[in-house]
Amino acid sequence: MRVISTIAELKAVIKAEKSQQKTIGFVPTMGYLHEGHRALLKKARQENQFVVLSVFVNPLQFGPNEDLETYPRDFEQDQKTAEEENVDIMFHPSVAEMYPNELSVSMKVRKRTDVLCGESRPGHFDGVAAVVTKLFHLVQPDRAYFGKKDAQQLAVIQGLVDDFNFPLEIVPVETVRESDGLAKSSRNVYLTEKERAEAPVLYSSLRMAADRIKAGEVNPERIVHSIMDRIQTETSGQIDYISILTYPGLEKMEVIKGNYIIALAVKFSKARLIDNIILIEE
Amino acid sequence: MRVISTIAELKAVIKAEKSQQKTIGFVPTMGYLHEGHRALLKKARQENQFVVLSVFVNPLQFGPNEDLETYPRDFEQDQKTAEEENVDIMFHPSVAEMYPNELSVSMKVRKRTDVLCGESRPGHFDGVAAVVTKLFHLVQPDRAYFGKKDAQQLAVIQGLVDDFNFPLEIVPVETVRESDGLAKSSRNVYLTEKERAEAPVLYSSLRMAADRIKAGEVNPERIVHSIMDRIQTETSGQIDYISILTYPGLEKMEVIKGNYIIALAVKFSKARLIDNIILIEE
Repeated sequence: MRVISTIAELKAVIKAEKSQQKTIGFVPTMGYLHEGHRALLKKARQENQFVVLSVFVNPLQFGPNEDLETYPRDFEQDQKTAEEENVDIMFHPSVAEMYPNELSVSMKVRKRTDVLCGESRPGHFDGVAAVVTKLFHLVQPDRAYFGKKDAQQLAVIQGLVDDFNFPLEIVPVETVRESDGLAKSSRNVYLTEKERAEAPVLYSSLRMAADRIKAGEVNPERIVHSIMDRIQTETSGQIDYISILTYPGLEKMEVIKGNYIIALAVKFSKARLIDNIILIEE
Repeated sequence: MRVISTIAELKAVIKAEKSQQKTIGFVPTMGYLHEGHRALLKKARQENQFVVLSVFVNPLQFGPNEDLETYPRDFEQDQKTAEEENVDIMFHPSVAEMYPNELSVSMKVRKRTDVLCGESRPGHFDGVAAVVTKLFHLVQPDRAYFGKKDAQQLAVIQGLVDDFNFPLEIVPVETVRESDGLAKSSRNVYLTEKERAEAPVLYSSLRMAADRIKAGEVNPERIVHSIMDRIQTETSGQIDYISILTYPGLEKMEVIKGNYIIALAVKFSKARLIDNIILIEE
């Protein structure tokens, strides 16, 4: 594996690989790699001849009161993980390398953004769209891999790729979970022992809701309230949102039907956790 | 030459050409091709193995009170011109093909835009950035050709490409002029005989200004006033703007130094003409 920190070196490598007609799989991350990222890397490795991982904590997607400074970083562990997953290139640029100047053009995500996490993180997905656009242009992948855990990010990026005709395929990958159902996340380390014990309730309440819908419930409000009750009763977390929306359009529904997502965010003392279930009709 | 109107067909052709490692030169236009466009096509033909011309009147770059409906179109003449210039693909999509849905992400040009022509056309360059991004992704050119006559468009697109790391080179092409110096433009036909005789003063006043700067003048205001005096004395045109700005940053200068552009726009009775000189230090 080669670790690359400059755009010039990355471009040279990509050019060489593309001239050999190799298919490129790309996994963009903010690092602190966990099992969820490993699942993305494994799938990229299976489906492509050349695999690029990026590790870049993108300042553009953090709000002024968010955790940019304290976002967990562990370059050496990430490098080890990437080597274990047979990554070819780990791209690890500095902020100055990625943003030498203030951008002369900015991106504004207009749909799929004023709901779920986007509602409380104005500008977050604008920053995601900008960095993803830059990285797609640098890596020129055939396929890019994103976890379903960040479902809104996945929906926004799919919209970006469709609307601007990026020449690549977005591959959604299933959320990886602990044995008790808690979705893997870099932020789980911030949970207290008590909170960690409570946290699996998030996923189990989503499963319960999905089961109720499968059993015939079509009223989104009743579903939301049943999830809310369980989380408020069984955890110390503060509910940020619980939503049922169309997927991938992320629009509100009066009656549950078609493809949809049930998504939630819950704040614990030092970690805000998100999770979701996406139901796509076959 | 092959005329293509669907994205699916264009993608298939581009994929086939790229698999043969051919270099692709791209000339995006709104059609009604003239000598200036021919210069772009000739340069693209010289420098690349495969040449794509797009002809698409992009509604996103027209304001509500602008001339989208009446913008001149002549598909058959354009096709003839493209064939004469040995274009390989003429891409001529419908508006519905390019914009099947309202974009979920929009682009906002933040720099290089509130000056020159951009000042009186809010949103114009946002629309240019969006269509150029789509076309770059569809055509995947090695080089894209833009005329220096539309210097602000060139500067905005260069900023877009630099900031978002598009994997291509922007090639600026010299303005094509009549023998008396008047920049070629579809709008020149709207000049009266008297105005046509006066119009070369625009370029000669720019040349005079460049000579004075080379001779040591560093005060932008004195240069602007000398151009203004000549145009007001020697033509019947109404000056829209005369500006000296850094290039390609398009920022104001207290003292003339480094790379700069002198640009002007002058309204005659039925035609608004623009011209410029760009001075790049070697």
